[in-house]
Amino acid sequence: MLKLFLAANTCALASHIALEEAGATHEIVRVDFRANEQRKPEYLAINPKGRVPALATGRGILTETPAILAFIAQSFPAARLAPLDDPYEFARVQAFNSYLCSTVHVAHAHRMRGYRWADDPAAIAEMQRKVPTTVGDCFELIETTMLKGPWVMGDRYSICDPYLFTLSQWLDGDGVDVNRFPKVVELRSRMSARPAVQRALAAQS
Amino acid sequence: MLKLFLAANTCALASHIALEEAGATHEIVRVDFRANEQRKPEYLAINPKGRVPALATGRGILTETPAILAFIAQSFPAARLAPLDDPYEFARVQAFNSYLCSTVHVAHAHRMRGYRWADDPAAIAEMQRKVPTTVGDCFELIETTMLKGPWVMGDRYSICDPYLFTLSQWLDGDGVDVNRFPKVVELRSRMSARPAVQRALAAQS
Repeated sequence: MLKLFLAANTCALASHIALEEAGATHEIVRVDFRANEQRKPEYLAINPKGRVPALATGRGILTETPAILAFIAQSFPAARLAPLDDPYEFARVQAFNSYLCSTVHVAHAHRMRGYRWADDPAAIAEMQRKVPTTVGDCFELIETTMLKGPWVMGDRYSICDPYLFTLSQWLDGDGVDVNRFPKVVELRSRMSARPAVQRALAAQS
Repeated sequence: MLKLFLAANTCALASHIALEEAGATHEIVRVDFRANEQRKPEYLAINPKGRVPALATGRGILTETPAILAFIAQSFPAARLAPLDDPYEFARVQAFNSYLCSTVHVAHAHRMRGYRWADDPAAIAEMQRKVPTTVGDCFELIETTMLKGPWVMGDRYSICDPYLFTLSQWLDGDGVDVNRFPKVVELRSRMSARPAVQRALAAQS
């Protein structure tokens, strides 16, 4: 059975929602970030990067949200979570998810995890100060150039939607007013109404 | 015809090599970073993110290295650049490339592009100071837990290899001694011997 290692309020929610959408038999395993469990040998044996999500499959462990999301879409084609038969459309899905992981999530991470890139507390505080601007700029670009509406890829729901939904949960904490982005607001509202999303959120709460 | 927008010494080299490996008819278009061309309206109309690479296809523009690499692999299956018929193995390729874009490239970017995440010059200098550590840690993890050898995925060359080769070019500048990582050294040497790599480097020089 698929086993998803996750922590609450992390990007692992995206993979969790996708498993629910796919109807994939799975269990979740909580990694306790407050106890720093993600840095302990037991978890590092699962994911040497010390991060979530990690997805244990019958063949081995997968990491990195865009890879896990594409794996779920390809493994459960009946759920139609990605345009699997069209390399160009599939690449557009991948490009969106890659932007979320390499730019949007990274911009957000400078608020709580600035220690990754600097040691001096003053520098870390400086990074935190800029987060509302950088995250706001990312969502401005998403709103105006990427999110077609109602779903990210247009009329068709895809693995882009749970991922954007997940990262949009962090806007308030990042000091960005989501109401600047009407299409993102609409997507959040549609996502919240989906049974798969409600099941994932309930299981994590 | 495929048209790759690139600048020298950027991660666009990975996509360029992949096009050469695939035998894809293509042309390259240089974006002049010294003239800040990537922020001018003409280029922003191509890629609103103001970054390279961007790949113009007959159907539209693709961005983000992991997405472009997967697109090339899927569009030119005869080149066997990724395990296309195995969702698990394909996800492992994607996970590696996702790690490169979201963690390794980001660690490196704090040396030259710290202004993305902070405004204060002292904070930017602090970020630069930590780059040898963060980039070194990433390559340590790659060497010990990801790179199977001789290629990233083992005996089979894949779209992971040009991407790792590209990022490994930056180690010296980042203040990291590549000789700490024998498998990376070996991969660089094997890559340098490939005609596709030589053609891409010659075209960019």
